[in-house]
Amino acid sequence: MKTVKTIKELHSALNLARRKGSKIHFVPTMGYLHEGHLELVRAAKKDKGFVVVSIFVNPLQFGPKEDLAQYPRNLKRDKKLLEQEGVNLVFCPPVKEIYPEPNSTYITEEESTQYWCGKFRPGHFKGVLTVVAKFFQLVQPDAAYFGQKDFQQFFLISKMAQNLFFKTKIKRVPTVREEDGLAMSSRNSYLSSTQRKQALGLIEGLRAMQFTYLSGIKDASELKRVMQKVVKSTKQLKIQYMGVASQKDLSPVKKVKEGDVVLVAGFVGKTRLIDNWIIGDKL
Amino acid sequence: MKTVKTIKELHSALNLARRKGSKIHFVPTMGYLHEGHLELVRAAKKDKGFVVVSIFVNPLQFGPKEDLAQYPRNLKRDKKLLEQEGVNLVFCPPVKEIYPEPNSTYITEEESTQYWCGKFRPGHFKGVLTVVAKFFQLVQPDAAYFGQKDFQQFFLISKMAQNLFFKTKIKRVPTVREEDGLAMSSRNSYLSSTQRKQALGLIEGLRAMQFTYLSGIKDASELKRVMQKVVKSTKQLKIQYMGVASQKDLSPVKKVKEGDVVLVAGFVGKTRLIDNWIIGDKL
Repeated sequence: MKTVKTIKELHSALNLARRKGSKIHFVPTMGYLHEGHLELVRAAKKDKGFVVVSIFVNPLQFGPKEDLAQYPRNLKRDKKLLEQEGVNLVFCPPVKEIYPEPNSTYITEEESTQYWCGKFRPGHFKGVLTVVAKFFQLVQPDAAYFGQKDFQQFFLISKMAQNLFFKTKIKRVPTVREEDGLAMSSRNSYLSSTQRKQALGLIEGLRAMQFTYLSGIKDASELKRVMQKVVKSTKQLKIQYMGVASQKDLSPVKKVKEGDVVLVAGFVGKTRLIDNWIIGDKL
Repeated sequence: MKTVKTIKELHSALNLARRKGSKIHFVPTMGYLHEGHLELVRAAKKDKGFVVVSIFVNPLQFGPKEDLAQYPRNLKRDKKLLEQEGVNLVFCPPVKEIYPEPNSTYITEEESTQYWCGKFRPGHFKGVLTVVAKFFQLVQPDAAYFGQKDFQQFFLISKMAQNLFFKTKIKRVPTVREEDGLAMSSRNSYLSSTQRKQALGLIEGLRAMQFTYLSGIKDASELKRVMQKVVKSTKQLKIQYMGVASQKDLSPVKKVKEGDVVLVAGFVGKTRLIDNWIIGDKL
């Protein structure tokens, strides 16, 4: 496994791989890797290509009151994990390499960002789309892998790739969960052991919704009430948003059907956690 | 000269050229070509590559009260002119090819668009940058050519190419003028013969400024007053904006120096015309 920090080194490694006829499969991350990231890497490996993982904590996607400075980092451990997975190339550039001067060009999505995370984290997806576009331009991947946990992110990146004619195929990899069901997230490391238990309200709520849906209830507000009931019993979990969205444009739906997505975000203490369930999928 | 309308045909023509080792030189236009466009083509030819010209009236860059429906078109004449210049490939896609579904991903620039045309045409540069990014993605040009007349456009596209790591070199080609000095523009075709004369106020104002600058005046507001005086004598020319900008970020400057740009926009009747002068250049 090769590790590079500059665009120049990245390009020469990629050119070498391309000359050998390899497809480039790309997994962009902010590091502090967990099983969720490693599943992305495994999906990329499985598709048989030259696997590139980037590790870059993107300042542009953090709000002024968010956790950029505290965001957990452990490059040494990350590299070891990636080596074990058979990754070919790790790209971990310093901020100056990706933003050589203050950035003033942005990629925005104006429709589906009005809902869910986009509504509560103004500027967040602008930062995500901009940095992902930059990395796509640098890596020119044939495929890129994103976790289902960040469903809106996956959705917006797919739209961007389509609208801006990126040749990159955007692949969605199912959420990896802890044994008790909590969706894996680098931010889980912020939770105390008490908070860790409180955080389960998210998955318990989704499971209760699933149960209710399977019993024949198709009305979004009735399903939401089930989630609210579960969450109320976990007083320390504060829901930020919760609803059912169409996969077409992420707009909220009233009558739900298979393929719609239940999206939920909540706070345990100061830690913000998200999760989702695609109706019809196993949970 | 080959003419193609679909992305598929475009790609196969480009692949053929690339396999022969040609550089791809790209001139994006909205058609209704004049000498200004042809100068872009000549610059592209001179740089020795496979020259691709696109003709596409981009709906996204017109404001709701602007002249999209009236924008002049003459594809037959355009193709003849391009053939004479030795262009290799013309790409004139229908709107559906570039916007297969309603566009929701945009490229924006938030700093330098607050001034000049950006200030008076909200959304215009968002539309320009988005469509240029789309075409760059489709054509993957080694170089692209833009006229100095649309200075802010050239500036923003250069910034975008830099910020989003496009490999495309952005080249600026000097403004081509009619014999009497009026900058060439497809919109000049809207002018009656009386208006045509009134439009000369722009270049006369710029020339008066140049004269004043050469006489030793470096104060932007004094220079602006000279332009205003000239324009006042042409009552039918209504100035929309006028000022001196830094080439660093297009912000207005107070003390001018070589390399700064005088930017001016005005209306003759309903026709909006722009022009500029880079201080130190010949006019």
